[in-house]
Amino acid sequence: MKFATLSYQEKKQVCVIDSTKNRFWPVTDLIDTFDGDMNQLVQDYDQLKGKLVIVSGGQDLSEAKALAPIERPRRNIFCVGRNYHAHANELAASVFKDNDKNPQSWPIVFTKVPECVIGHLDTVALPGEVSQQIDYEAELAIVIGKGGKNISRDDAMSHVFGYTIVNDVTARDVQIRHQQWDLGKSFDTFCPMGPWIVTADELDGSKTRVRCWVNGELRQDGATPDLIFDLPTLIETCSRGITLYPGDIIATGTPAGVGMGMKPAQYLKSGDVVRIEIDGIGVLENTFK
Amino acid sequence: MKFATLSYQEKKQVCVIDSTKNRFWPVTDLIDTFDGDMNQLVQDYDQLKGKLVIVSGGQDLSEAKALAPIERPRRNIFCVGRNYHAHANELAASVFKDNDKNPQSWPIVFTKVPECVIGHLDTVALPGEVSQQIDYEAELAIVIGKGGKNISRDDAMSHVFGYTIVNDVTARDVQIRHQQWDLGKSFDTFCPMGPWIVTADELDGSKTRVRCWVNGELRQDGATPDLIFDLPTLIETCSRGITLYPGDIIATGTPAGVGMGMKPAQYLKSGDVVRIEIDGIGVLENTFK
Repeated sequence: MKFATLSYQEKKQVCVIDSTKNRFWPVTDLIDTFDGDMNQLVQDYDQLKGKLVIVSGGQDLSEAKALAPIERPRRNIFCVGRNYHAHANELAASVFKDNDKNPQSWPIVFTKVPECVIGHLDTVALPGEVSQQIDYEAELAIVIGKGGKNISRDDAMSHVFGYTIVNDVTARDVQIRHQQWDLGKSFDTFCPMGPWIVTADELDGSKTRVRCWVNGELRQDGATPDLIFDLPTLIETCSRGITLYPGDIIATGTPAGVGMGMKPAQYLKSGDVVRIEIDGIGVLENTFK
Repeated sequence: MKFATLSYQEKKQVCVIDSTKNRFWPVTDLIDTFDGDMNQLVQDYDQLKGKLVIVSGGQDLSEAKALAPIERPRRNIFCVGRNYHAHANELAASVFKDNDKNPQSWPIVFTKVPECVIGHLDTVALPGEVSQQIDYEAELAIVIGKGGKNISRDDAMSHVFGYTIVNDVTARDVQIRHQQWDLGKSFDTFCPMGPWIVTADELDGSKTRVRCWVNGELRQDGATPDLIFDLPTLIETCSRGITLYPGDIIATGTPAGVGMGMKPAQYLKSGDVVRIEIDGIGVLENTFK
């Protein structure tokens, strides 16, 4: 199933969507006792899913606005750096200059604050003089369903609720100068997310294609089989000693083709449109201003 | 004033305390319309503070248990690394080996997940085989009162609600192997906080002493005038491009004397008691098991 947080007739609702037929059904219309947000749906999904029976009809998806599926994550988003070989190479002289030689032994994990999340078609605010090196990073994001701690690789995929798209927008100069990356990754509006979540039974996240265009020009064209650390390893890693909760998000890293890796580097400027498509999920598009 | 989150007679309440006279007053007894937690108090403080008139009496503080003053921060805690000169030197060959030469130009800022917060006298859970290099870091923590973005140094101190103590417990091997520190800093129970918050009008955070004992042995003895980046600079830094919110916490870094800096390194083992005292605040003590 696909789940979106939609704004429709001035109401905000968690909805089941059919993106092919362009229809949606508010979850509360299917389960009248449900009155929560996406975090609530994810948490209670085992009890709810049997009741989510789509009847015909539904409403016109094109009349609703897709907000970020999880508008306000319960805590910072876990993000993985340097997780595609070609991307590791393109930034080997800059972001990853202090990195151990390939193959690295452990994933790099940093965070983005929850308040920087915005939705599909929302505007990313360029921060003016604070940074003029704003870059995109197209990423497949895991949404954790069942929480847990010290989750093993073998058991990891049973903890996945589904997948969405994240643009891990980055102020490169800020990322590098503070050594730890959280600040340069956490500027207001720097986490476009959406347009919806596809449940794990409908998408094999380990075999999908991640593409990103800037103003129509294809910049990133990767596929998750090229991940340095695969999805089970990332879940195992983030949960070592740390309890994961339903609704936690793990952005899995970006393929080659970021602006900083171009020669010369090309950063985003006002009016630029970044469009990310992940096969099996959909399109996340945002204008930078 | 000092504010604590106290558990008393199976109720959890935000309270004004007088640590000298050993008394406490639930805020709801002083303002009958108040029914919130510490985050709510911090957010509404400008409206509430005029009504917080302490009458005589109060209840016996020794009969209550101090929970973490902000039991569940609204998002990850901002933490500053390498912010005392002597501490920068003691870890120059390990944690900070990739660091630029002194003086560094920008603060290092990473995060801890909100769910790792525990209170005074709570037990820190050693993570067993996941890491055997568990270390303490005694720190003064700023609690943000008034939110804001791109806060200037000059204006920064007007955004401080108050101060508390944080033990930035760290799994050193995990911190280093992932390059980004968030994972090694975020294990469950790895953020003892408390015992209460002292408002900014009662403590000059820029001139106080930070000490830490392990099993009675004085290990850390620093003072905030020795910070590499002072409190206004840290607030300016964390708010550049990023909106800060009431209740946000910035742990300001630890003085020299951590276990990893000893020769040979001495990590915490089951039964160890770490006691932190910051002048003007109080004592935060936790047993590791």
